[in-house]
Amino acid sequence: MIVPYECRCGSSYAPTADRWRCDCGGLLDLPLGAVRWPPRTDVRSMWRYLDAGDLPWRDVTLGEGDTPLVREDRELYLKVEFASPTGSFKDRGAVVLVALARALNASRLVADSSGNAGTAVAAYAARAGVAAEIFVPAGTSEKKLQQIRGHGARVTVVEGSREDTAAAAAARVEESGAFYASHVYNPYFHEGTKTYALEIFEQLGGAVPATLVLPAGNGTLVLGAHRGFAELRAAGLIDRIPRIVAVQSELCAPLAEAWTAGRDEPEPVRPGHTLAEGIAIADPARGSRILVAVEDSHGAFVTVGEDEIAEAHAALAARGLWVEPTGSVSYAAVRRLRAEGSSLVIGGPIVAPLCGSGLKASL
Amino acid sequence: MIVPYECRCGSSYAPTADRWRCDCGGLLDLPLGAVRWPPRTDVRSMWRYLDAGDLPWRDVTLGEGDTPLVREDRELYLKVEFASPTGSFKDRGAVVLVALARALNASRLVADSSGNAGTAVAAYAARAGVAAEIFVPAGTSEKKLQQIRGHGARVTVVEGSREDTAAAAAARVEESGAFYASHVYNPYFHEGTKTYALEIFEQLGGAVPATLVLPAGNGTLVLGAHRGFAELRAAGLIDRIPRIVAVQSELCAPLAEAWTAGRDEPEPVRPGHTLAEGIAIADPARGSRILVAVEDSHGAFVTVGEDEIAEAHAALAARGLWVEPTGSVSYAAVRRLRAEGSSLVIGGPIVAPLCGSGLKASL
Ligand SMILES: [Zn+2]
Ligand SMILES: [Zn+2]
Repeated sequence: MIVPYECRCGSSYAPTADRWRCDCGGLLDLPLGAVRWPPRTDVRSMWRYLDAGDLPWRDVTLGEGDTPLVREDRELYLKVEFASPTGSFKDRGAVVLVALARALNASRLVADSSGNAGTAVAAYAARAGVAAEIFVPAGTSEKKLQQIRGHGARVTVVEGSREDTAAAAAARVEESGAFYASHVYNPYFHEGTKTYALEIFEQLGGAVPATLVLPAGNGTLVLGAHRGFAELRAAGLIDRIPRIVAVQSELCAPLAEAWTAGRDEPEPVRPGHTLAEGIAIADPARGSRILVAVEDSHGAFVTVGEDEIAEAHAALAARGLWVEPTGSVSYAAVRRLRAEGSSLVIGGPIVAPLCGSGLKASL
Repeated sequence: MIVPYECRCGSSYAPTADRWRCDCGGLLDLPLGAVRWPPRTDVRSMWRYLDAGDLPWRDVTLGEGDTPLVREDRELYLKVEFASPTGSFKDRGAVVLVALARALNASRLVADSSGNAGTAVAAYAARAGVAAEIFVPAGTSEKKLQQIRGHGARVTVVEGSREDTAAAAAARVEESGAFYASHVYNPYFHEGTKTYALEIFEQLGGAVPATLVLPAGNGTLVLGAHRGFAELRAAGLIDRIPRIVAVQSELCAPLAEAWTAGRDEPEPVRPGHTLAEGIAIADPARGSRILVAVEDSHGAFVTVGEDEIAEAHAALAARGLWVEPTGSVSYAAVRRLRAEGSSLVIGGPIVAPLCGSGLKASL
């Protein structure tokens, strides 16, 4: 599973603990891999889908993945991603990054997050015995800081924007040579999130959904889910991939704006204060790749408003599902598209994730 | 799966929506059932183990059960019960009670809980479309009340002790004829928690653990786990059941005291304020049954102190596992028994549950 990083400039690099971008400054990617199908039957977690012989995953895993796919009606399925060891889908990517850090003999790692990725990386780093430093923006809740510290990680609070936090983390990585466990920069994160797609494919008995409705901020789930189905397609196991409907908040929608304008790259926006804070990314580093993934899938971008997010949250609670506000944006989009009679949500199974637990929200 | 309730007085009752105790005032039990083995392979959740044709479980399920069993060392396994739809093992019992309420055409139900059972019942009742009223003691956190209300349940706050809350709930049941979704009085709750045992048996590849270390308050997990292995034994699938080490807080230990004194019934205690509030039950209604189950298993009771609970909580966090304080009592007991070289924790696999998510704790 450990294959070289690639940059669009043509460079490639065998992964090392301190490599997190190309010497040209470009983002690192991974080529499509060979999918393991059928999955192994002796493992219940997401590792059943990965050919991970060269990763020490058994020393790191908390049994992540294998989340419920519950049926709401004839066509709609919700994937209960918050029933995960740290309460969000970020576990899928975080466990792979930490296992990779261990495989590369990193003694310490750095991550930055205002949200679920930070706690997930801290938890897995603790389990793997890798020292962790987590950069968080000022204003992160005391409850979250307590948890990150509980996992033995060092917390560094950064005044300023989310981008300032990421810059501070990157500077620490540069100065220290620590492994950068970044869900934005390290493409191995998508090796983890791709299992979201493979798991749905297996849970539906080998059927390809018509539509995946997915939240999009930094695009970790869009890119991972696209990757999973693209690998199945490349292996000849399926002949089409589901259309991906990527959802942003109206108050922070750089990708949706680029999509509508027909641009190849998003332009940074000034984010408003949205209930969907987990996807309020003003300048997504992998923006062009997210746009390409959605286009390849014959999908689209949609935005949802604050009222729609709040209504979707309440509707989910009335169905027994208690999620973070950000976790209800996909469902909000499904509700809207259905009300509009959109062709994006017809033709077969629709699957939307519930990404984070409502227990995470402070009160 | 719907079989008659039995009382020790000899009476039996076909379940109806308003039946929650014997006319003699006694507790209702269920006979050991026929275990379904091997489990069905077309269902991933705990329903793979249940012969539930007469329950409308597909309309209620959130995919509960199927929780990770993670290996800590050569002998110790931890079962990550908090990676459940509502964040605790109580989902296993709550979903069965709510499905039963639906099968019995109950239009409303009542539950009482200061903790995880209340939110679990509220969530499943919402999903099933059964109106719910949850009685909680004064002092229950605003965050929990918000969640229960979010699920559409009515909340009734009761001044006084946990016992006062239960009495108020029972009075409402009596006056209204509502289904009493009680994890204490309704023995179908244990039909749900028995899947904890069956799942471990399957996850260990058909091996019987040497020891199950389990928290004991009202004994829902002790009674359920005992039931699961007792049914396997009755079916001739195994020839012995694991010893059950039942764990109480030093500050509220009526069962451990009865065990030590050789009594058949616990005497009510005056509980101290313990970190393990989830199992601080001063007068467990099913006390004699819990004592018998532990005896049948050749197990024992142990108590743990506040420092041990806090240390176990920290040790779990340092292993990537973020639990409620109550959720660390089993692990605290394992640590102590191992340090003492106790024979209770030798001879094969030891399994301890992590019952509730640390995200539930307010700050
Ligand atoms: Zn380059
Ligand atoms: Zn009776």
